[in-house]
Amino acid sequence: MKKLEITGQSLPDMPWQDRPAGSKEVMWRYSENPVIKRDALTTSNSIFNSAVVPFKKDGWNYAGVFRCDDTNRRMRLHVGFSKNGIDWNIEENDVRFTGADPEVARWDYGYDPRVAWIEDRFWVTWCNGYTGQPTIGCAWTLDFKTFHQVENAFLPFNRNGVMFPKKINGNYAMLSRPSDNGHTPFGDIFYSESPDMEFWGRHRHVMSPAEFAKSAWQCMKIGAGPIPIETSEGWLLIYHGVLRSCNGYVYSFGSALLDLDKPWRVTARSGPYLIAPREIYELTGDVPNVTFPCAALHDPDTGRIAVYYGCADTVTGLAFGYIPEIVEFTKKTTIL
Amino acid sequence: MKKLEITGQSLPDMPWQDRPAGSKEVMWRYSENPVIKRDALTTSNSIFNSAVVPFKKDGWNYAGVFRCDDTNRRMRLHVGFSKNGIDWNIEENDVRFTGADPEVARWDYGYDPRVAWIEDRFWVTWCNGYTGQPTIGCAWTLDFKTFHQVENAFLPFNRNGVMFPKKINGNYAMLSRPSDNGHTPFGDIFYSESPDMEFWGRHRHVMSPAEFAKSAWQCMKIGAGPIPIETSEGWLLIYHGVLRSCNGYVYSFGSALLDLDKPWRVTARSGPYLIAPREIYELTGDVPNVTFPCAALHDPDTGRIAVYYGCADTVTGLAFGYIPEIVEFTKKTTIL
Amino acid sequence: MKKLEITGQSLPDMPWQDRPAGSKEVMWRYSENPVIKRDALTTSNSIFNSAVVPFKKDGWNYAGVFRCDDTNRRMRLHVGFSKNGIDWNIEENDVRFTGADPEVARWDYGYDPRVAWIEDRFWVTWCNGYTGQPTIGCAWTLDFKTFHQVENAFLPFNRNGVMFPKKINGNYAMLSRPSDNGHTPFGDIFYSESPDMEFWGRHRHVMSPAEFAKSAWQCMKIGAGPIPIETSEGWLLIYHGVLRSCNGYVYSFGSALLDLDKPWRVTARSGPYLIAPREIYELTGDVPNVTFPCAALHDPDTGRIAVYYGCADTVTGLAFGYIPEIVEFTKKTTIL
Amino acid sequence: MKKLEITGQSLPDMPWQDRPAGSKEVMWRYSENPVIKRDALTTSNSIFNSAVVPFKKDGWNYAGVFRCDDTNRRMRLHVGFSKNGIDWNIEENDVRFTGADPEVARWDYGYDPRVAWIEDRFWVTWCNGYTGQPTIGCAWTLDFKTFHQVENAFLPFNRNGVMFPKKINGNYAMLSRPSDNGHTPFGDIFYSESPDMEFWGRHRHVMSPAEFAKSAWQCMKIGAGPIPIETSEGWLLIYHGVLRSCNGYVYSFGSALLDLDKPWRVTARSGPYLIAPREIYELTGDVPNVTFPCAALHDPDTGRIAVYYGCADTVTGLAFGYIPEIVEFTKKTTIL
Amino acid sequence: MKKLEITGQSLPDMPWQDRPAGSKEVMWRYSENPVIKRDALTTSNSIFNSAVVPFKKDGWNYAGVFRCDDTNRRMRLHVGFSKNGIDWNIEENDVRFTGADPEVARWDYGYDPRVAWIEDRFWVTWCNGYTGQPTIGCAWTLDFKTFHQVENAFLPFNRNGVMFPKKINGNYAMLSRPSDNGHTPFGDIFYSESPDMEFWGRHRHVMSPAEFAKSAWQCMKIGAGPIPIETSEGWLLIYHGVLRSCNGYVYSFGSALLDLDKPWRVTARSGPYLIAPREIYELTGDVPNVTFPCAALHDPDTGRIAVYYGCADTVTGLAFGYIPEIVEFTKKTTIL
Amino acid sequence: MKKLEITGQSLPDMPWQDRPAGSKEVMWRYSENPVIKRDALTTSNSIFNSAVVPFKKDGWNYAGVFRCDDTNRRMRLHVGFSKNGIDWNIEENDVRFTGADPEVARWDYGYDPRVAWIEDRFWVTWCNGYTGQPTIGCAWTLDFKTFHQVENAFLPFNRNGVMFPKKINGNYAMLSRPSDNGHTPFGDIFYSESPDMEFWGRHRHVMSPAEFAKSAWQCMKIGAGPIPIETSEGWLLIYHGVLRSCNGYVYSFGSALLDLDKPWRVTARSGPYLIAPREIYELTGDVPNVTFPCAALHDPDTGRIAVYYGCADTVTGLAFGYIPEIVEFTKKTTIL
Repeated sequence: MKKLEITGQSLPDMPWQDRPAGSKEVMWRYSENPVIKRDALTTSNSIFNSAVVPFKKDGWNYAGVFRCDDTNRRMRLHVGFSKNGIDWNIEENDVRFTGADPEVARWDYGYDPRVAWIEDRFWVTWCNGYTGQPTIGCAWTLDFKTFHQVENAFLPFNRNGVMFPKKINGNYAMLSRPSDNGHTPFGDIFYSESPDMEFWGRHRHVMSPAEFAKSAWQCMKIGAGPIPIETSEGWLLIYHGVLRSCNGYVYSFGSALLDLDKPWRVTARSGPYLIAPREIYELTGDVPNVTFPCAALHDPDTGRIAVYYGCADTVTGLAFGYIPEIVEFTKKTTIL
Repeated sequence: MKKLEITGQSLPDMPWQDRPAGSKEVMWRYSENPVIKRDALTTSNSIFNSAVVPFKKDGWNYAGVFRCDDTNRRMRLHVGFSKNGIDWNIEENDVRFTGADPEVARWDYGYDPRVAWIEDRFWVTWCNGYTGQPTIGCAWTLDFKTFHQVENAFLPFNRNGVMFPKKINGNYAMLSRPSDNGHTPFGDIFYSESPDMEFWGRHRHVMSPAEFAKSAWQCMKIGAGPIPIETSEGWLLIYHGVLRSCNGYVYSFGSALLDLDKPWRVTARSGPYLIAPREIYELTGDVPNVTFPCAALHDPDTGRIAVYYGCADTVTGLAFGYIPEIVEFTKKTTIL
Repeated sequence: MKKLEITGQSLPDMPWQDRPAGSKEVMWRYSENPVIKRDALTTSNSIFNSAVVPFKKDGWNYAGVFRCDDTNRRMRLHVGFSKNGIDWNIEENDVRFTGADPEVARWDYGYDPRVAWIEDRFWVTWCNGYTGQPTIGCAWTLDFKTFHQVENAFLPFNRNGVMFPKKINGNYAMLSRPSDNGHTPFGDIFYSESPDMEFWGRHRHVMSPAEFAKSAWQCMKIGAGPIPIETSEGWLLIYHGVLRSCNGYVYSFGSALLDLDKPWRVTARSGPYLIAPREIYELTGDVPNVTFPCAALHDPDTGRIAVYYGCADTVTGLAFGYIPEIVEFTKKTTIL
Repeated sequence: MKKLEITGQSLPDMPWQDRPAGSKEVMWRYSENPVIKRDALTTSNSIFNSAVVPFKKDGWNYAGVFRCDDTNRRMRLHVGFSKNGIDWNIEENDVRFTGADPEVARWDYGYDPRVAWIEDRFWVTWCNGYTGQPTIGCAWTLDFKTFHQVENAFLPFNRNGVMFPKKINGNYAMLSRPSDNGHTPFGDIFYSESPDMEFWGRHRHVMSPAEFAKSAWQCMKIGAGPIPIETSEGWLLIYHGVLRSCNGYVYSFGSALLDLDKPWRVTARSGPYLIAPREIYELTGDVPNVTFPCAALHDPDTGRIAVYYGCADTVTGLAFGYIPEIVEFTKKTTIL
Repeated sequence: MKKLEITGQSLPDMPWQDRPAGSKEVMWRYSENPVIKRDALTTSNSIFNSAVVPFKKDGWNYAGVFRCDDTNRRMRLHVGFSKNGIDWNIEENDVRFTGADPEVARWDYGYDPRVAWIEDRFWVTWCNGYTGQPTIGCAWTLDFKTFHQVENAFLPFNRNGVMFPKKINGNYAMLSRPSDNGHTPFGDIFYSESPDMEFWGRHRHVMSPAEFAKSAWQCMKIGAGPIPIETSEGWLLIYHGVLRSCNGYVYSFGSALLDLDKPWRVTARSGPYLIAPREIYELTGDVPNVTFPCAALHDPDTGRIAVYYGCADTVTGLAFGYIPEIVEFTKKTTIL
Repeated sequence: MKKLEITGQSLPDMPWQDRPAGSKEVMWRYSENPVIKRDALTTSNSIFNSAVVPFKKDGWNYAGVFRCDDTNRRMRLHVGFSKNGIDWNIEENDVRFTGADPEVARWDYGYDPRVAWIEDRFWVTWCNGYTGQPTIGCAWTLDFKTFHQVENAFLPFNRNGVMFPKKINGNYAMLSRPSDNGHTPFGDIFYSESPDMEFWGRHRHVMSPAEFAKSAWQCMKIGAGPIPIETSEGWLLIYHGVLRSCNGYVYSFGSALLDLDKPWRVTARSGPYLIAPREIYELTGDVPNVTFPCAALHDPDTGRIAVYYGCADTVTGLAFGYIPEIVEFTKKTTIL
């Protein structure tokens, strides 16, 4: 088997911890989890489901957009910076967007952000409460200080809008999960393109929930997680899946490989999960039994990946792995 | 009050019947309703929620795209022609679309069509089952024989996509109602634009359901009906609204006026309905208590309008009125 | 068996029609039903669930408070007068209440009224939307022109508040049905007393829904109907019961006898219904399958009773019977 | 195509009416429907979903077991006799069973009976309320006077137990539909065998609801109807299917062919329905939009079949057809 | 700002612990929580949602009425006494009420008690299962040995009845939360008055749940907590609010200020919560994620307050704060 | 009181730990719980709800069939062996059944096994996904290597099939809980017999959920646990019960005594639970708040019993007690 090629900038100092001795896990947790506590801000109720990217400036090595619910339990986005990707300096004030059409600027809340560097700037996407209804908000920034909001990508109801890190077929490309107006009990991943980040189309179906008898942890709904990673085997997508027990939803995450040119074609999809709720900070909190990945750092040279994931909708955890192993695992356990 | 100007082609011979003596109604039913019976085709279970336009050719004066559910209760679109707009010759075979990307051509069902003439061709929009999930299908035709399907306008879940009959702000413009995957118990009307009928954006919120205490017939969900009619008082939109009783949904319809240039701004909205289920063919059928408008013919010279509406999801009825009276009614009873 | 004594004023000219030849029914419908059509007012959508009392004045013999939903489908109360109890002159303007504390006057809607003459005045009770939540509104009138609103009797959520026509244990007495904020799927009848129509207490449980296997038409919820009639066998209560089928609620009505001094003690309760939806005006309408009694006229001398009942939440019907026969039927078929 | 062989006794005088001129229907309704009215008994609320068989005795030609709900809306079984299969003499008293173990005799209600002649006696099966929970009751009779109840066939929750008219693999054989304790929103047909009508096993799955996109009228649940008819093409099974609209369940019926020796193998299944609610007595009643077949008479010589079906859970209708045409229709429109 | 005046008796030795160093919290937890364990009684399953008052007698300084569910999980009220308000001596036998009308004495269960000293006696209110339906039970005691039950305050369905500690407008006054018969998914706080603790009226609406976008922790339902505390800024009300996640209800608590004379007028209402589930004994237990306050001790001289709150419907916790700070917090963060 | 006689083989070395000092509990937990961790297998997500029996062979003293969900969250059965009943050697490969009719062998999943020695072999029963629908699978083994599958005992939907350890009335006997196709919110225990493990009948109702006011932990559904134990006071049945809170189901367990000859007759039933979720491994996990017993070992000589129970659908725990004490507790606290 030839060596997996991975696209991306070198990150030799990215957060990392070796696999624990004796562990059989494809991905393993950081021993000091949670890396971000719920009360890191003066008035934060919880900090989770957040986006992190390499960003070298002013002495920082990483920047991020964080979901910080306050003690009113309002959902807000905050900027943060870090030297090592583990200790974060999150700003007390939430993000304010500029430049948007006043119609678009009518937003109530923002949550579950993702950040991707595409060509010449960072694009932030998030679940945006437009006239009270969730859809995908979009904005760009160069410095994580000024954020330029553009048109919402889609009509409501939509969540988990995740950009690809480069244009596909000459267009910007996004994964998303059409939803309803509540705790949506269904959900497929779709793919869409835009020539200009203003108008979107060429919508394609990517993946549905799995059959219960094949892979139950992802049998009720699924949604894209971190920005997909380009490899010689296709786009590596880490995504969450949900199972409903008699006591509520359980959020786990696994992996899939998408065709590089037609990313709506899935070539492999893991039957087992990579991470599912097991630790007390995942099993208990504002929403018990949630592990929800929104961002990843990776180093192409070593194949290392560090996934940031929300724990119980309360705190933020880190899990580690090797991309070649995850790709192999995805292919070996595929349920397609 | 100055005379209302109404845009559109003259239709001196459109279907018509004067208001019955003594009637206090703003709109009144055709005495020979239903005009299209459920078994007009060999294997039709029901014919309703259908689109009708002026179309002079081959001796016909009107063409239409009809929702004809067969006795498998599969939802299909059929073409029909008529000389007088009342007696219809509907084709036994359902519409087949050509030209679409094979990905887009994966459709399972089509229902609730609308047809609009825009610039140089007829555009058909309908609720399109793409990978089993309802969204807005789009196709154009010149002759009602060949239909060229283009990209679906939106991501699922969407219904009641209704085009404006001309470009707005240089773009194609559509109203639609984001939905869920079932008998959606919510629903607002949104507005979207497209430069090319391929990519859509600039989504704007238009109207939410009314407050129960103000106008209960439209308090659960609403959706656009026929193609809006341009008048000097704004776009006249006839739309359906739904109330949920302990025994199910009741579909009625009323009217609104939208700003000509920014059609997402509602300037008037009728508190009372125009038509609500009262007749036995509206009260009983496959779905009792439904009056659902999908098309209208109008004559700018006389101000006459004839609305085609589905009755009990089973047959098709006609209701008449005068546009100036409806506009006046909308303004006078507005709940804004 | 000794003759049944019935309290009340003589009404020799009350609405009446003899039992049809061959009928086995304890109560039978008026052959000209519905007596009040849905569009009796200029802007009425429906007229039903209404209250009627003897009222000799200005040439009238009967007065009433009617539930008239308008074509906004707002629920309103209107006054009406009649010479014969069958042909009604209902006022176009809805009832306005005076005299209430401004806090209490904050009402949104009113429906399902009852009217009782107690000692020296008429008391109207109705389902009153106080801050949007249904409870029992109360007002008195002498002339059906001026209505003096007093405090709401109870906290929300409550419906079907029905006064007794005289004080019991020295107090005003009312039956009511505690509810929830929707299409309540449960409901018992309770009894309450008030020394002053301002403060209420001594709440007692009267009746629960019946067991499915014993009397299914009343197995989901029940509620008092017309003002109870005093007889030597106890208070005769006509009440509605609801069964839920896979296609919605079905409202029928039957009868019960309550202890004269402790009216929360039920001494007999009919297993069969008296009237259940059978006629097309009861089976179809805004809410199919509803027969809902709200008022009755009776003549103690002949034992005749005429029950006014809402049909399909759309129109008003009349049903006739003999009180001694109904009392006998109640005792003979009792499910207690 | 060789002539279809049909098993059964000759019934030259069975109820019949020729197909109406111009009708394209495979089955057509009797022009005098409903044949049994809701109030045929002194205290019946409704008579429907009933079982009819040839039975020559005492001047009668047909006997039946009828579901007669009384005006308490209790579900009861009554015996009836007829000379022509159309005019029925139904007994005022309901069926009483004898001979059962006292434990089994604890039944609360009975409904939706079927009757089959097997070898030497008539077997009645019905939905039997055992300790309040529906399962399949079984009894035999020779004379429709004395009914010998045996053990319930299955554990709750079960409905629509339908015997085959002869032993299969040396065992009694039954179709049934496992259910839940309410208005079950799911339901497949299963097959079971018994050596002795006491112990049952060898349960096999027969059919699931159809895919919505293929045959929507049967997409939520299905259940066997009349006793299957043996033909040279397999067992002809007429069965009901249910679609759920926003306003409730709609019951239609179609046909399937089952392997003669392994009846759990379906060889053809009609996509279109044979009969769906269209007439006012099917569209309105205690449960609107129900056509529910429970019995059929057929004449092998002419191929005629007359299906008795419940209408709106209120009255009983008759529909006619030719078995060879139905078999052909089933094969031609099969969705397998 | 002038000093806040607080009404009440001095409690210099009330339970107390200073704010932890570095804490930014307005209220903070007792470090030895939970103060009452679930198995403090021989057969208790849980002890929580309980009422505590100063009561100097027999060597005790505090008395209380406790909700003690037994291992049948029956809800019962038990009396307890304490010297320091932290270590409690709860009686093994549950409270028995005397003196009630036999009709009122028909109670099945009691839970979530509150106790208030009003003029000359202690009044206990609790959620009382009257004929199986929850309403507000009332009783008085002088010695916590004999409890005199009076009439239930309201009709079902009601919970969280909380007395004011003095008469208002010459009447007894109570807050309560009308409910339904299950896990009520809605709920406003209302105010009622009584001249005699027998008849209640003058019902006024106080507060609804907050808008989701403003204060999500209280957006589904709210209910009064401890007896309101009189201050120069109005009545200080600590109340619980509920948010529904995909994994169930989350109970937090915050504060409001009510007008002294018209307590149904809210003058300030905290956007952030004071306490929300964070600790393992709040996050896990019979009902995860519940912090539910039912009682408070306060010392007017120091402004100290100690709130007793149920944790996860399993154990009892204590939280501390300063009333002037809470009043200030309420005003500063108000969402009105 | 005479000494309780207990049937069964001597197990002097069964797992055991004395009651902790000071404990008032009838059953107490093993201090080293959970005895089986969730990741005991390479790819196990959880190991719980499992069956254990004495089995002396190859150096082992105990064998078991374990529910091991893998990280796809597929439900599988695995064999395990142990010397001491505490440390288990579970096989990595799941059980494969042989010998079944190919129709029966169509199974999708298996869970919640029970194992009973009856006469000459071990019988395994489990919840078996037959054509995707849960019913009771049956198989026998002599060596825990080869498992001979026979016919499914019942039609779907069924769960918790538990054999009696000897024939009753000459027949095999089983308890089971008819269910629906989801997280069944209802459930009674039934009893059935079979002469041959192929055909089943003589179904009898055993127990319903308890009244809420009497014993709330078992008020929504109940199901049999370990194989019943024969005693001179009747069959001792340990069973689970479920209560639904606003945050989901809570599974506890208690005990009942069944008549030896007519085991559908319950002679005593504990009001309090024996074990309910209290420990962190019971309160948190894949399904919080579950304690679910599936097997027990007992020693007739000492009266000791060790119950294996699933904890939070994640791990396996052990609880101990004395059978005579449990029998006494059952009788003393009976709610019958």
